[in-house]
Amino acid sequence: MEAETAPETMAAFYAELDGQNMAPLWESLHSLVPRQPAPVIQAAHWDYDAVVRPRLMEAGRLITAKKAERRVLILENPGLRGKASITQSLYAGLQLILPGEVAPAHRHTQCALRFIVEGEGAHTTVSGERTIMHPGDFVLTPNWTWHDHGNESDAPMVWLDGLDIPIVAFLDAGFAEAGNADSQPTVRPDGDAEARFGGTLLPVDWRASSRNSPVLNYPYARSRETLHRLERNGEADASHGYKLRYVNPADGGWPMPTIGAFIQFLPGGFRTAPYRSTDSTVYAVVEGHGESIVGDRRIRWKPRDIFVAPSWQWQEHAASGDAVLFSFSDRPVQEGLGLWREERGIPRR
Amino acid sequence: MEAETAPETMAAFYAELDGQNMAPLWESLHSLVPRQPAPVIQAAHWDYDAVVRPRLMEAGRLITAKKAERRVLILENPGLRGKASITQSLYAGLQLILPGEVAPAHRHTQCALRFIVEGEGAHTTVSGERTIMHPGDFVLTPNWTWHDHGNESDAPMVWLDGLDIPIVAFLDAGFAEAGNADSQPTVRPDGDAEARFGGTLLPVDWRASSRNSPVLNYPYARSRETLHRLERNGEADASHGYKLRYVNPADGGWPMPTIGAFIQFLPGGFRTAPYRSTDSTVYAVVEGHGESIVGDRRIRWKPRDIFVAPSWQWQEHAASGDAVLFSFSDRPVQEGLGLWREERGIPRR
Amino acid sequence: MEAETAPETMAAFYAELDGQNMAPLWESLHSLVPRQPAPVIQAAHWDYDAVVRPRLMEAGRLITAKKAERRVLILENPGLRGKASITQSLYAGLQLILPGEVAPAHRHTQCALRFIVEGEGAHTTVSGERTIMHPGDFVLTPNWTWHDHGNESDAPMVWLDGLDIPIVAFLDAGFAEAGNADSQPTVRPDGDAEARFGGTLLPVDWRASSRNSPVLNYPYARSRETLHRLERNGEADASHGYKLRYVNPADGGWPMPTIGAFIQFLPGGFRTAPYRSTDSTVYAVVEGHGESIVGDRRIRWKPRDIFVAPSWQWQEHAASGDAVLFSFSDRPVQEGLGLWREERGIPRR
Amino acid sequence: MEAETAPETMAAFYAELDGQNMAPLWESLHSLVPRQPAPVIQAAHWDYDAVVRPRLMEAGRLITAKKAERRVLILENPGLRGKASITQSLYAGLQLILPGEVAPAHRHTQCALRFIVEGEGAHTTVSGERTIMHPGDFVLTPNWTWHDHGNESDAPMVWLDGLDIPIVAFLDAGFAEAGNADSQPTVRPDGDAEARFGGTLLPVDWRASSRNSPVLNYPYARSRETLHRLERNGEADASHGYKLRYVNPADGGWPMPTIGAFIQFLPGGFRTAPYRSTDSTVYAVVEGHGESIVGDRRIRWKPRDIFVAPSWQWQEHAASGDAVLFSFSDRPVQEGLGLWREERGIPRR
Repeated sequence: MEAETAPETMAAFYAELDGQNMAPLWESLHSLVPRQPAPVIQAAHWDYDAVVRPRLMEAGRLITAKKAERRVLILENPGLRGKASITQSLYAGLQLILPGEVAPAHRHTQCALRFIVEGEGAHTTVSGERTIMHPGDFVLTPNWTWHDHGNESDAPMVWLDGLDIPIVAFLDAGFAEAGNADSQPTVRPDGDAEARFGGTLLPVDWRASSRNSPVLNYPYARSRETLHRLERNGEADASHGYKLRYVNPADGGWPMPTIGAFIQFLPGGFRTAPYRSTDSTVYAVVEGHGESIVGDRRIRWKPRDIFVAPSWQWQEHAASGDAVLFSFSDRPVQEGLGLWREERGIPRR
Repeated sequence: MEAETAPETMAAFYAELDGQNMAPLWESLHSLVPRQPAPVIQAAHWDYDAVVRPRLMEAGRLITAKKAERRVLILENPGLRGKASITQSLYAGLQLILPGEVAPAHRHTQCALRFIVEGEGAHTTVSGERTIMHPGDFVLTPNWTWHDHGNESDAPMVWLDGLDIPIVAFLDAGFAEAGNADSQPTVRPDGDAEARFGGTLLPVDWRASSRNSPVLNYPYARSRETLHRLERNGEADASHGYKLRYVNPADGGWPMPTIGAFIQFLPGGFRTAPYRSTDSTVYAVVEGHGESIVGDRRIRWKPRDIFVAPSWQWQEHAASGDAVLFSFSDRPVQEGLGLWREERGIPRR
Repeated sequence: MEAETAPETMAAFYAELDGQNMAPLWESLHSLVPRQPAPVIQAAHWDYDAVVRPRLMEAGRLITAKKAERRVLILENPGLRGKASITQSLYAGLQLILPGEVAPAHRHTQCALRFIVEGEGAHTTVSGERTIMHPGDFVLTPNWTWHDHGNESDAPMVWLDGLDIPIVAFLDAGFAEAGNADSQPTVRPDGDAEARFGGTLLPVDWRASSRNSPVLNYPYARSRETLHRLERNGEADASHGYKLRYVNPADGGWPMPTIGAFIQFLPGGFRTAPYRSTDSTVYAVVEGHGESIVGDRRIRWKPRDIFVAPSWQWQEHAASGDAVLFSFSDRPVQEGLGLWREERGIPRR
Repeated sequence: MEAETAPETMAAFYAELDGQNMAPLWESLHSLVPRQPAPVIQAAHWDYDAVVRPRLMEAGRLITAKKAERRVLILENPGLRGKASITQSLYAGLQLILPGEVAPAHRHTQCALRFIVEGEGAHTTVSGERTIMHPGDFVLTPNWTWHDHGNESDAPMVWLDGLDIPIVAFLDAGFAEAGNADSQPTVRPDGDAEARFGGTLLPVDWRASSRNSPVLNYPYARSRETLHRLERNGEADASHGYKLRYVNPADGGWPMPTIGAFIQFLPGGFRTAPYRSTDSTVYAVVEGHGESIVGDRRIRWKPRDIFVAPSWQWQEHAASGDAVLFSFSDRPVQEGLGLWREERGIPRR
């Protein structure tokens, strides 16, 4: 019966709805409630040496860190241009601090991770504690903590920034403040957070004040050694090789409430079985060369490259020689909301 | 020094970045990391009797519930048209089921709430249990549960649907399935969930299988009686009057992981002190007349009207006679991520 | 070889150890670390009408409530006399308040439950809120809260007290204080806690300050109605009939951190399948007649009787007519420590 | 009035109660519910070199580890003899394994810790993984895990065993099984647990299956280094010096649900301010000489001595040279039950 409603009647009705800030669900139900994730973002790859680094250095010539406040080249997903997003929910950029420069103190409700790409000896100071950064280190600036960066070495320092900017924007819940000085005074010695929080001991009276990890820097030397020992001790996981997640020692959970981070070792010649999960993931190559298949895209990577795998697209990773991949995603958010899913496929012969 | 870089040099550099899926952070830092929430959504108001109901009934003439799958008029925020969103993170719509109609069984990873607006005696069936709905009832369909609706009464039945569609879409984590029948068989009698989970007792061996409340229907008769007793027992809160949150009895938390819901009583003549919080909130008027000031907008409301207050805008609510407001927001998400803030202002004389 | 050590050599060695506050583990290992629980406590039964009530009334003639501070007859397990314990970890007693009497305010770190046995209209006041008690009500006095009792009715009032006195004593962690007045002023009206906490709604800004339930009184009228609805709605559990646990609405857990409490309905003619668990359990008969087999002991019970089932002894309960049993145990402690076990046996024909 | 009841009347009444497994609360209320902890256990001290070690070696001559199943000298609190308890809730003993000996595999619901006192190179195997033990190592055997010990070195190996035997006995919740072989096969290489769980990384798919820490051995080398870094980085706590708690990396909580463990550094010449808490605590001296005042008892200690401080007695600890103390207590139980309290006193000049 309803089939008899003339299209022009419907159109008139829809126009009338539109004038009242209303819309008919039945015209969009299946796109609003899709059968499975249909991400707008795409698999993408940034070649560090050929593409990113030359432009970073050019940025270093064109603007100072202080004037920029943060001299960062945002990596924008080609499926979501203009949104400063590498996945639908996360932001990534590469930050350059030249010798003698400072990125002045500020704070914001966005959580940030830094994964060090090149250079040695620049520092990040968070809440009065300084850490000296080395390639492969995973450094946190929890939300609403004062933080600044400086480079006292004699070489450029570059790191990957990962932030939950799109999440905080989506929720309209962001606040920020500028500090009144470029650098904050340090009130704790270098390495203090690692001493107090980096092992399987905690100060007897310490209590967590947020869901952010109290560990300021998860040094690569230690992550690498752990991967090495795991490799000697047992079989690789078919889908992941040897894969670890960074942990908040205060609760065994994720390092930040919005971002999970991982480090994995792929032995030379190893190819992971197809795997997919609902958390679109950003990968940074730490060591080694290899290739990844993400959906129907083939990505050949080498050290310091960045690539991204969208939600629910099948992924395979193969290392030509021993390789280490760092990665991060919004998995803590999805798990907290009961939305995260994964699927393991059949390994190819 | 860097000020000397010619604007055309910068423009050329930006164009080059753009070609490589990159962008300069320093041009957008303060909009990406704002000083305080700057929502795109706007305060808005839908007049039920004058605007919504006539169009719902027209929809009832133009399309059947079965053909529509869900015959719903989406309420779209005027600041965010075309996105099927009433706030930046939540969806709301008004659903009509005419006597004898059925909305067929499906399931999806989106969580849904129903707040009953008019009619008596239609039912929702969730996971084999049916509940008969009455005005003011708060009914849940947790994520990934089969659910269908039917109206065996002789009058139209209308309810407000609230879903986390934008959240699930933002995370690219949605799945859905259609059932193979219009209605699922009921395997539990009406009211069973309320008997088992609706008090301060739980079946001895029952364990929660998700973070969704096991209560299918929070009946208005009981909510209203609780508000009434609170009013007799003590003073109103300056910012809220008498305000309760719906609770998941399995953990004392929110009824769904993504949506918090509230019911509040404003005595006749009471005006709340200014208040703001970061969770944009959808209000549905259950009883009474009054007006609310949201940011610089004044909204006069009456029973069954819907209005929305954006993140961090000051709100005041005043009831001319005794009034009851239902509301819902993404507060569970924001609290879980450490982002939720509120501020209480000075009451006006 | 070691078998050659002469017994007198060992004895001399043991005596020397004894003088130094030491002892050889190998002589007691299997009693210290038993194959399965070997409780010292025994199944026991107190006949209310024939044994307990006459002595309670005699106590009422011999001492006032005020002079006694608490006029209670302790139920001592026959396997553990002199320890004021009904199980190895819990205390139980029957408290009598005569018309016009008062049990003065005090507080202690022990948690207490009251399960009302006879009388109507006496009150308990906890932290400034009063509740009027009726048979079958389950009333809490959380640890370190001021509480007093009074009987303004014209009949004796008797309730079962259950406390964690042995647990607190075992841990040497008990504190107590006497109040400076017999009765504390009431600052909240009767029934306020039930209104605020007794449903599936909580005051929007309320936060739990301990692991004790904020519900002061779980009224029997409601417990009984819930049991009745469950019975109409589905099959009885073979081991338990229809069994519910009292819940802390703030977290879905136990009403007190040390004591779990239960209420169960056994239809007339129903016999439970054999069941055992590691939490020795105190039962109070609310309604009905029946018999229970506990280990090798057969107990015939009637309303207001009390009986106890030791850890890991097989239990069966049979009701001659419809019956309701209240029970409590240290199950929250055992679950929290990872020690609780249960086993379901084969039903007898 | 009630004062007039003749003593012989009361005595007759009490005798009658006694015959019915009842007792009058008012005669024992204040001892059952004391104003503050009044422990039966006493401060005590075991001199390792002069008292314990000679007798351990004598035990080594008189009985084999295999025949004894566990060749352990129990340390019995002088206030609680015959109960195999060093505090009211915990057991401690010193275990000796001679070169070539084995302590055969068994498992039990009691949790055990080992704190290594002397020797190098003996092993403990837990659930198929072996750890080689060194002085100061803190080794766990979580409840219900198969475990055995062996000494393949050429010197005697001694460690302090700490178990929750009295807690499990008090709750009548203990189970045990003997293995069918002296030693279990090792299925994981030495150090695997430390590699997987000992840092701030966890295997991506690992889930805790109990509240026991997955770390098998917390090596002293690392604990000592952490204490050393803390000392360089900041001020000592007035009551504790530099004190850390061992942590379960899966949840940030205690290493076992029943036992908390601590390690603290006291600089030479440092004297702690008076401090007391409700958890009776067992101390083992790792390094240094000093003295402790516990209640009215003064204890002079040196490496490998054991001493115990009862609940709520004031403690002060002073180190003559740099000292390290290991300690353990039932604090997790008390915190879980809402019972734990501490008090800091005024430092002496």
